[in-house]
Amino acid sequence: MEANRAFADDFALGGFDGVARAGVAIITCMDSRIAPLSMLGLSPGDAKIFRNPGGRVTEAALEALVLSVHLLNVNRILVIPHTRCAMASSTEEELRERVGASAGQDAHWQHFHVVRDQKAALADDVRRVRTHPLVPESVAIGGFIYDVDTGLLERLA
Amino acid sequence: MEANRAFADDFALGGFDGVARAGVAIITCMDSRIAPLSMLGLSPGDAKIFRNPGGRVTEAALEALVLSVHLLNVNRILVIPHTRCAMASSTEEELRERVGASAGQDAHWQHFHVVRDQKAALADDVRRVRTHPLVPESVAIGGFIYDVDTGLLERLA
Repeated sequence: MEANRAFADDFALGGFDGVARAGVAIITCMDSRIAPLSMLGLSPGDAKIFRNPGGRVTEAALEALVLSVHLLNVNRILVIPHTRCAMASSTEEELRERVGASAGQDAHWQHFHVVRDQKAALADDVRRVRTHPLVPESVAIGGFIYDVDTGLLERLA
Repeated sequence: MEANRAFADDFALGGFDGVARAGVAIITCMDSRIAPLSMLGLSPGDAKIFRNPGGRVTEAALEALVLSVHLLNVNRILVIPHTRCAMASSTEEELRERVGASAGQDAHWQHFHVVRDQKAALADDVRRVRTHPLVPESVAIGGFIYDVDTGLLERLA
């Protein structure tokens, strides 16, 4: 709360309306190594940013994108999973075993939605956005892998 | 891509393993006015950040938090919706009408998960995390509203 008060003391974003000033929406992973705005040269206010484990285009992501495109000025969508992602380098079973061992109880009931083939998943995710009936043709869509060790984006879809 | 190459030229986060160094996980909205790390005085690498429309604790958010707590060093969870959120200031019907008008087609089939009572939703969301069988008692959980006009957080749960 103290750090937040210091942040608010210098606050300069008040009165802004919440559209994406640069017209960008980003779907990416919750990973702590990802800095979605800086890695794209963007600033606060420029982009809507949806994040979940793996950076997947879920139903919730599609709902978010439809709102972004029609109400929040978005005309470019970037789907950005990343290298060395825990969601793409473990099996469902391994995650359940590791969480269960840490929790001291059987965690097999918990689903984690691991990604078996990251590139195939990305291609599929970009296609889910591209073919959505409420995402117009005029919206540009790209699929990228972010390299957490170099900071570079590689376009794959 | 050009901005990304400039970013990568100065990249200093390589080789890092993706745990949350400050032990923090944040559930917040995709809104472009929110800067999750700076508003808490945190730096890249410090936190796992899950974002969706409204900053809601969905099933996907709970899965992300279970992984964060058991495998990624998280021991504090902050749930942070914000003031003037489109998800909390429109009805489902209004959003469908506005999206439909923009899209030039009937959008009534599309669900948007609007929030009727933001404070009640926040209390419910914090309780969903608190009572989850795979989130240990030792994990601290807080519910806050972020004021997009002042930059201040108010703790409500």
